[in-house]
Amino acid sequence: MAAPYELIYYTGVPGRGEHIRLALEEAGASYTDTGSLGMNKCREVVTEYLTERSQDEKNNPPYYAPPMLKHGKLIISQTPNILLYLGPKLGLAGSREDDTYRVNALALTALDGLSNEVHDSHHPIAVEMFYEDQKEESKRRSQEWINTRLPKHLGYWEKVLGADESGPWLLGSTFTYADLVLFQCIDGTQFAFPKAMNHARETGNYKCVFKLWEDVKARPNVAAYLDSERRQKYDWGIYRYYLDNDVLPE
Amino acid sequence: MAAPYELIYYTGVPGRGEHIRLALEEAGASYTDTGSLGMNKCREVVTEYLTERSQDEKNNPPYYAPPMLKHGKLIISQTPNILLYLGPKLGLAGSREDDTYRVNALALTALDGLSNEVHDSHHPIAVEMFYEDQKEESKRRSQEWINTRLPKHLGYWEKVLGADESGPWLLGSTFTYADLVLFQCIDGTQFAFPKAMNHARETGNYKCVFKLWEDVKARPNVAAYLDSERRQKYDWGIYRYYLDNDVLPE
Repeated sequence: MAAPYELIYYTGVPGRGEHIRLALEEAGASYTDTGSLGMNKCREVVTEYLTERSQDEKNNPPYYAPPMLKHGKLIISQTPNILLYLGPKLGLAGSREDDTYRVNALALTALDGLSNEVHDSHHPIAVEMFYEDQKEESKRRSQEWINTRLPKHLGYWEKVLGADESGPWLLGSTFTYADLVLFQCIDGTQFAFPKAMNHARETGNYKCVFKLWEDVKARPNVAAYLDSERRQKYDWGIYRYYLDNDVLPE
Repeated sequence: MAAPYELIYYTGVPGRGEHIRLALEEAGASYTDTGSLGMNKCREVVTEYLTERSQDEKNNPPYYAPPMLKHGKLIISQTPNILLYLGPKLGLAGSREDDTYRVNALALTALDGLSNEVHDSHHPIAVEMFYEDQKEESKRRSQEWINTRLPKHLGYWEKVLGADESGPWLLGSTFTYADLVLFQCIDGTQFAFPKAMNHARETGNYKCVFKLWEDVKARPNVAAYLDSERRQKYDWGIYRYYLDNDVLPE
């Protein structure tokens, strides 16, 4: 029997672990998720992985932060790295020679621009400080981000989607995990900045991007997952809603 | 004849392209570098790759930003992705099953923590604005980063280096491109924050980290490269020196 996939991640928000969950769910893979253990037990298990090293783990360098994936004796960290590992196994990494690298580049670009940058909008000074202690800087950064970065990112993704007309996905007719990553990034950014994202949608300049978001959401396995209790609500974490930051482009 | 490796990156600073250069130089690989074309011609060529798509490129999705690597008809972007591609070809990605993912996780962690975070210290509000227009926020962020993030990162790397005692590298006795990435990150962070980094060194808490920096610098191919005109000086780019940000931990 093949070893199960074990996702090691916090619970209470979709977070970075969500990209892994979406890939496993889309593929209908069997997996365990520390997120289902309840808040306290989950935190305990995740902390144990970060601080103690079992015999099983000694071939793997220590991890910096969750999400981690355990598969047999291999434990790896870093969201795009876990997707890179799972992609071919789940049939979500393309089919041509070197598609691995095309898909990985797209995933990295989406995570940089529409996950890390959005996160830093509510924590521009320090992740270790409360939002309330960097509220003014956060407001300034959010407005600048919406003015200049958001159209740059959406424009880039519209260009990628327009470059291969064989289908609606980032690699044309081939659906990959990069589409799932972009879906989750667009979904979260809509939660964090609804005014700016509604405005972007209404301009009609990013039709392919918003269509991808709709198309991914409608895929049967994704739809069933999003409708289940396994899909967690946005709250703290990467995508947060703050009234002060929810502005239109100037 | 095998296709040459072609690095497509700006000139005038080491920047993100430096991680690719170091891997190619360490392996003694033959490569071309748009950085050697001189400032104007280099910018022209890089811009062309970003805005126009030749017949050769149509199998590759558009790129968001340099560095890019061209190898035959494949063109890929994103620093850790290019390293992932080159790693096995240059003999710098480990030798055990799944080392690819161990090395990639380490490279991603170093780039996140000691390259992206250091960059954002001088541009906490917006990359599109001048440093001078976010100077106060930059000063606040740098002090916080030095207080909390720098020891966290250095502590993590010291832990990784201590976990496998078979040798001085991140994977013990096996030298990989993750060691080159960490070297460049430590080198750049020393340029940006000399006071804090000297202080960190003097605490004696990060002996393995600073030893790795010395050991990589002394590798014959790396030493010859660092001594050559191909190694560019820090200036603008990721690692910048600003007197206001060069502070000790509080």
